[in-house]
Amino acid sequence: MVTSPVVNTYPLSSYTFGTKEPKMEKDTSVADRLARMKVNYMKEGMRTSVEGILLVQEHNHPHILLLQIGNTFCKLPGGRLKPGENEIEGLKRKLSSKLAANSPGLQPDWQIGECVAIWWRPNFETIMYPYCPPHITKPKECKKLFLVHLSEREYFAVPKNLKLLAVPLFELYDNVQRYGPVISTIPQQLSRFQFNMIHP
Amino acid sequence: MVTSPVVNTYPLSSYTFGTKEPKMEKDTSVADRLARMKVNYMKEGMRTSVEGILLVQEHNHPHILLLQIGNTFCKLPGGRLKPGENEIEGLKRKLSSKLAANSPGLQPDWQIGECVAIWWRPNFETIMYPYCPPHITKPKECKKLFLVHLSEREYFAVPKNLKLLAVPLFELYDNVQRYGPVISTIPQQLSRFQFNMIHP
Repeated sequence: MVTSPVVNTYPLSSYTFGTKEPKMEKDTSVADRLARMKVNYMKEGMRTSVEGILLVQEHNHPHILLLQIGNTFCKLPGGRLKPGENEIEGLKRKLSSKLAANSPGLQPDWQIGECVAIWWRPNFETIMYPYCPPHITKPKECKKLFLVHLSEREYFAVPKNLKLLAVPLFELYDNVQRYGPVISTIPQQLSRFQFNMIHP
Repeated sequence: MVTSPVVNTYPLSSYTFGTKEPKMEKDTSVADRLARMKVNYMKEGMRTSVEGILLVQEHNHPHILLLQIGNTFCKLPGGRLKPGENEIEGLKRKLSSKLAANSPGLQPDWQIGECVAIWWRPNFETIMYPYCPPHITKPKECKKLFLVHLSEREYFAVPKNLKLLAVPLFELYDNVQRYGPVISTIPQQLSRFQFNMIHP
């Protein structure tokens, strides 16, 4: 039989959560965000962004850590690479900026694993596709999602204006209305992995 | 930068298609199918099925080969493993049964590649999930989807009662109404691959 790659998942209770200074969104509206994207594109070309899928388990079912902004919008931790920045290093930098304490001694050991999906933004619009659409020669953004293999114990510092949620796969699945097309199909992208649920 | 796994895709025109004797569906209704599944489960336990994703390119965009039954229903080539059968060997057997000529000299060189998704059927019902739902200790079916790396030239023999279609990823994406939850999210599962489009 073909063996699936294994992901160890530890209970949510094995992690410790604190808070840190707020990380405000750079834009106050979708229109502002797309306008800033356009300005950056003129200067630096295609935007590459990287996001991390951090898994924990509760009740023997995998959960993903999402950052909630306000009461509804959820996103994966991550962000935009600097021009020429290495993807793995950039993702570690972004994860630390979003989730690590400021003290260097409290940095989680970010083990960046498999790339599970790549999304393309053909235009300065919100819609993205899991392929570069035909006839698009200059996509505006490429977003890559990576598994992050967490250690058994970590301390996360969550910016005060955000909430960190552990959302079960069964809540994400088929829930594009609530989580959008990128996050709601993570269960399908993770289905090829075998989760080794580690109990306390 | 992290390198994506590469899939060579050849033009649809580099393949040759013929026909062979009809392969009738074993069941004439969904209810019959679920009833047969239940009988088999009692005898043999959980059903394991394997399906192949065969890729070609047209106009620089990846297309997937689907078998169309009647005017609407589409499926991936594949089927149920025999009890204890190896997944790779079983998928090769099923691909030959659906798409190879009867002559042993005309068998395609089936190169079974990456497992891209695993779906679970918790009950004798049509609904499947990309994870085994919590509290389900005895799933009724596990379906695995594998990439099949095609050679540059092949001869496919299509059963006379079926049509073989090359469907572009952009047609599958976000089209659960037409293709169902398993096939319509293949574009997301393939997004991590880099397609090397080979031209004639």
